[in-house]
Amino acid sequence: MTTETSKLRGGENLSLKRKNKNLLYKIFPISQWLSEYKKEDLVGDLLAGLIVTIMLVPQSMAYAMLAGLPPQVGLYASILPLIIYAIFGSSRVLAVGPVAMVSLLTLSGVGAIAQAGTAEFIALALILALMTGVIQLFMGIARLGFLVNFLSHPVLVGFTSAAALVIGFSQLKHIFGIQVARAEHPYQLFINIINNISATHLITLSIGIGSILILTYFKKFLKRNLKSLKFSDVISETLSKTGALVVVFVSTILVWSFGLDSVSGVKIVGEIPAGLPPITIPSIEATQIAALFPIAMIISLVGFMESISIATTLASKRRQKIDANQELIALGTANIGASVTGGYPVTGGLSRSVVNFSAGANTNLASIITAVLIALTVLLFTPLFYYLPRATLAAIVIVAVASLFDFKSFRHIWAYSKTDALALLTTFFGVLIFNIEIGIGIGIATALLLHLYRTSKPHVAVVGRVGDTEHFRNVLRHEVKTCPETCALRIDESLYFANTKELERTLLSAVADEPKLKNIVLICSAVNFIDASALDTLERVVEELNSTGVNVYLAEVKGPVMDRLEKIGFVENFGKENIFLSTHQAIEFLGCKKG
Amino acid sequence: MTTETSKLRGGENLSLKRKNKNLLYKIFPISQWLSEYKKEDLVGDLLAGLIVTIMLVPQSMAYAMLAGLPPQVGLYASILPLIIYAIFGSSRVLAVGPVAMVSLLTLSGVGAIAQAGTAEFIALALILALMTGVIQLFMGIARLGFLVNFLSHPVLVGFTSAAALVIGFSQLKHIFGIQVARAEHPYQLFINIINNISATHLITLSIGIGSILILTYFKKFLKRNLKSLKFSDVISETLSKTGALVVVFVSTILVWSFGLDSVSGVKIVGEIPAGLPPITIPSIEATQIAALFPIAMIISLVGFMESISIATTLASKRRQKIDANQELIALGTANIGASVTGGYPVTGGLSRSVVNFSAGANTNLASIITAVLIALTVLLFTPLFYYLPRATLAAIVIVAVASLFDFKSFRHIWAYSKTDALALLTTFFGVLIFNIEIGIGIGIATALLLHLYRTSKPHVAVVGRVGDTEHFRNVLRHEVKTCPETCALRIDESLYFANTKELERTLLSAVADEPKLKNIVLICSAVNFIDASALDTLERVVEELNSTGVNVYLAEVKGPVMDRLEKIGFVENFGKENIFLSTHQAIEFLGCKKG
Repeated sequence: MTTETSKLRGGENLSLKRKNKNLLYKIFPISQWLSEYKKEDLVGDLLAGLIVTIMLVPQSMAYAMLAGLPPQVGLYASILPLIIYAIFGSSRVLAVGPVAMVSLLTLSGVGAIAQAGTAEFIALALILALMTGVIQLFMGIARLGFLVNFLSHPVLVGFTSAAALVIGFSQLKHIFGIQVARAEHPYQLFINIINNISATHLITLSIGIGSILILTYFKKFLKRNLKSLKFSDVISETLSKTGALVVVFVSTILVWSFGLDSVSGVKIVGEIPAGLPPITIPSIEATQIAALFPIAMIISLVGFMESISIATTLASKRRQKIDANQELIALGTANIGASVTGGYPVTGGLSRSVVNFSAGANTNLASIITAVLIALTVLLFTPLFYYLPRATLAAIVIVAVASLFDFKSFRHIWAYSKTDALALLTTFFGVLIFNIEIGIGIGIATALLLHLYRTSKPHVAVVGRVGDTEHFRNVLRHEVKTCPETCALRIDESLYFANTKELERTLLSAVADEPKLKNIVLICSAVNFIDASALDTLERVVEELNSTGVNVYLAEVKGPVMDRLEKIGFVENFGKENIFLSTHQAIEFLGCKKG
Repeated sequence: MTTETSKLRGGENLSLKRKNKNLLYKIFPISQWLSEYKKEDLVGDLLAGLIVTIMLVPQSMAYAMLAGLPPQVGLYASILPLIIYAIFGSSRVLAVGPVAMVSLLTLSGVGAIAQAGTAEFIALALILALMTGVIQLFMGIARLGFLVNFLSHPVLVGFTSAAALVIGFSQLKHIFGIQVARAEHPYQLFINIINNISATHLITLSIGIGSILILTYFKKFLKRNLKSLKFSDVISETLSKTGALVVVFVSTILVWSFGLDSVSGVKIVGEIPAGLPPITIPSIEATQIAALFPIAMIISLVGFMESISIATTLASKRRQKIDANQELIALGTANIGASVTGGYPVTGGLSRSVVNFSAGANTNLASIITAVLIALTVLLFTPLFYYLPRATLAAIVIVAVASLFDFKSFRHIWAYSKTDALALLTTFFGVLIFNIEIGIGIGIATALLLHLYRTSKPHVAVVGRVGDTEHFRNVLRHEVKTCPETCALRIDESLYFANTKELERTLLSAVADEPKLKNIVLICSAVNFIDASALDTLERVVEELNSTGVNVYLAEVKGPVMDRLEKIGFVENFGKENIFLSTHQAIEFLGCKKG
């Protein structure tokens, strides 16, 4: 072995080591932030962990109730999943746990095959968490994160706004203290509530509305008020996040001291079993998998979407990176963790992650601290929630989802593009009229159809020479020179199956309209790819045009497109001499001189 | 009233008249070609009408048999639909009638709910024609012709090739003279044939194979042989189209003279009722509509696709135009015509249209002549087909569809693009393994998914200045100059929901990778539109980047894109001074001087 190769070997070893380390960091991001952990990160992580716990304890119980599950299931879903995410997640500040949207989806999916509150319902929620976890894990490993691209912004806004309404409706019965029959379609739920409104339980309603008012005050005004009273930013910020804790505390004390549960019949949470979550191995039947699959798929995508959006936004603020497929792996594993510890589907939550970030979380240690504090709560403090009124939990849900109803985005989208607004509206009404799965399905299909429709009629401009320059512009927008025997067409779209028919129509009618026409120059500066359908059409149309005595030329074909056309032999058939680098060269060659 | 306005009125009247005339021509194209009809057109129309009739009589019976219908249904479908198309169709040479593909689809769709050959089956075929007609008519009026864009070239090649195999399989039982049970999935049919092959009826097989050999000789070699014997082009062409007539004649004579039907058990066509088609008003139930809807939809689209392709190709050869939505209206009305005269779904046929064209058809009078000749056949000549062996009709079908198995296109597509080839293969195997509807569905979904995948990762190039010019090119492909504080990115794709995530990822990781970076210039020369999802992402990312101290600039934004960005207020927020006409101006402004 010569010195040179052994040197190379040494270099290889070194780069191999670095590669291994990078791989370790990629698969277990915890290994990176733990090895780089600095003492000064600790204060932020501790404070953030504490504040998120204060929010999460009441929220997790409230969301579990929204999902049709006992409150402890929400708490269980806030322990192991957080620790697992801290190990695998590529975001350092994402707060994982129960969220409103996924809870609603759980209710909608499991509620279709079992009665909410029953043991079967709880068992199915575990299975759903397992399926969601497996799907996300698989998508992450198979690098299928791009599937989330199907959910366009208008579809998401329509879905989220409709879901906020549905969630709001579903909690009204707790606020009014009435019984409402389960409805198959969301709009029926609204009708059912109206029909039963006369049975309103006034004390429950007072607790509910009081809670909503307090929570709204904390959310909207407290921070400003405290700041104007010269409190420090950190204290104002922290105190304004304790709204849920305060209403829980006050309403529990009220019910306990006046015996409102036994005397007046206010519905309370009741006994929550103490102790750490049970280890649960879901037993699954094939029919259950088939029935839950659509909703598991939607939770996987919608949950991932919510999570990755907030993770990306927060990471960018500190110039950190998020790996979409690693996020899927982390969320998938977290969901599997939820399913084996008595929980239900989880994902990264919007508001708690923002709180975590702004409370100063530097690493996922904050999440681990939250998980430990929730575990302590489950072990020691569950008796404190015995007298907690359900109306208070409903109020927490309602205030949390109110901001999801996004009328501003709707107005913005409506002003920008009527087709995008159409996709939004079909999703919105699809969810309200049918159900979530069908609504999202209709929305995705509409968005795809409209996209195909939009690109099926590409913008094609006839261009001419601007003055004596080498620039060519649209004859309709600019004062330009053209010549009668030659038509220069700029195609402003990639050519693929949805627009090949239109391309053919455009070319053939240009020829049919202009009997003198002898040359067509296709300017391909905006053609980013040509698929097999378009290639076939192009070959056929060129042949047809040639047979009627019209010559076709190409100009400004992009590098990658040209590479493929050369490989397949199109260039050779077409004639290399008929392809020009610039429009100017083509027009010069065809004898349409300047001036 | 002043003279000027009355002059204007006169002008208006004139242009109104012209408009009315154009509208008349558009809705009833027959009014145009009839009013322009010249004596010298007549010879071509007569000859073409005759030759197409010679092909159509045996073909229409053979295709009806393929569809599981009695032979006269094929003949009935070749009278009124042709006349209706002649009135409404925008092509002057399209030959409408029964075709192999639509016959197979009819068998597949109706066969799933009724036994082939029964009265119920025939009634359902009529209803299917009516539904197809109504769907096509509706699509034409609602201008939904663009829906056909869903059928990409690879999906069509995969579908057509698989359908050719399925059609071939389905006829083998007639060639071998065996009984084969109906199979739910096409591949099972093949297995069933193999299992029954030992029961082959040798005389039937001889007739079948003899017919195939004669037909192949006529199709492939006769024209050349006649030409080399110094026959004129017209005679060679005409005689080479009489293959089907010859095998029908020869095999009928053979069976009749040797009594092969009664003595040896060769299956024959038997009695065909004489007389013009009966007027039929289909009586329809809602369950039938629901059951037939998917296949009616597929026939509408596939039939239209086959028809419009050949119509467009032939029209271009004479610099004529085809109006896609008018074609839908014409085919829809023709199908409704088929359903009320005892026929079944029809469309414009590939091979007969080519024959019609090359035999010299100048106008749709050729089709009307064909229709009259077929009506005469039904009135007078049906007894002649009594002894016609079914094996001969099967041979006609097999030879007709053999060329639909398109291995050449597959090789071409495979060489050009593996993703397009994947869409082809999933369609091909989907049709063979499941059935036609599922196969096409899988194919369309795959093509859409792959398209989204392709555009979800747009080509983004970091560009730099070429020498001292004002040109900027990809740093990876060219020797260019860049500066460390400014990154110029050219985005080679329209921005829409499928690629907003990738856009965000690209921008944020450019910033995360390069701590010195202060300016990002987005070059939008290939961005043909920005949808609401992309606008939302752009607004958000620009804000995020600004908050980390990175400025974003735009260059070379296209006119239509800029118009919308201005309307929605993006330009105002973003700062008009941050948008440059050319990359050169942006880079100059940011202080990266030439040289």
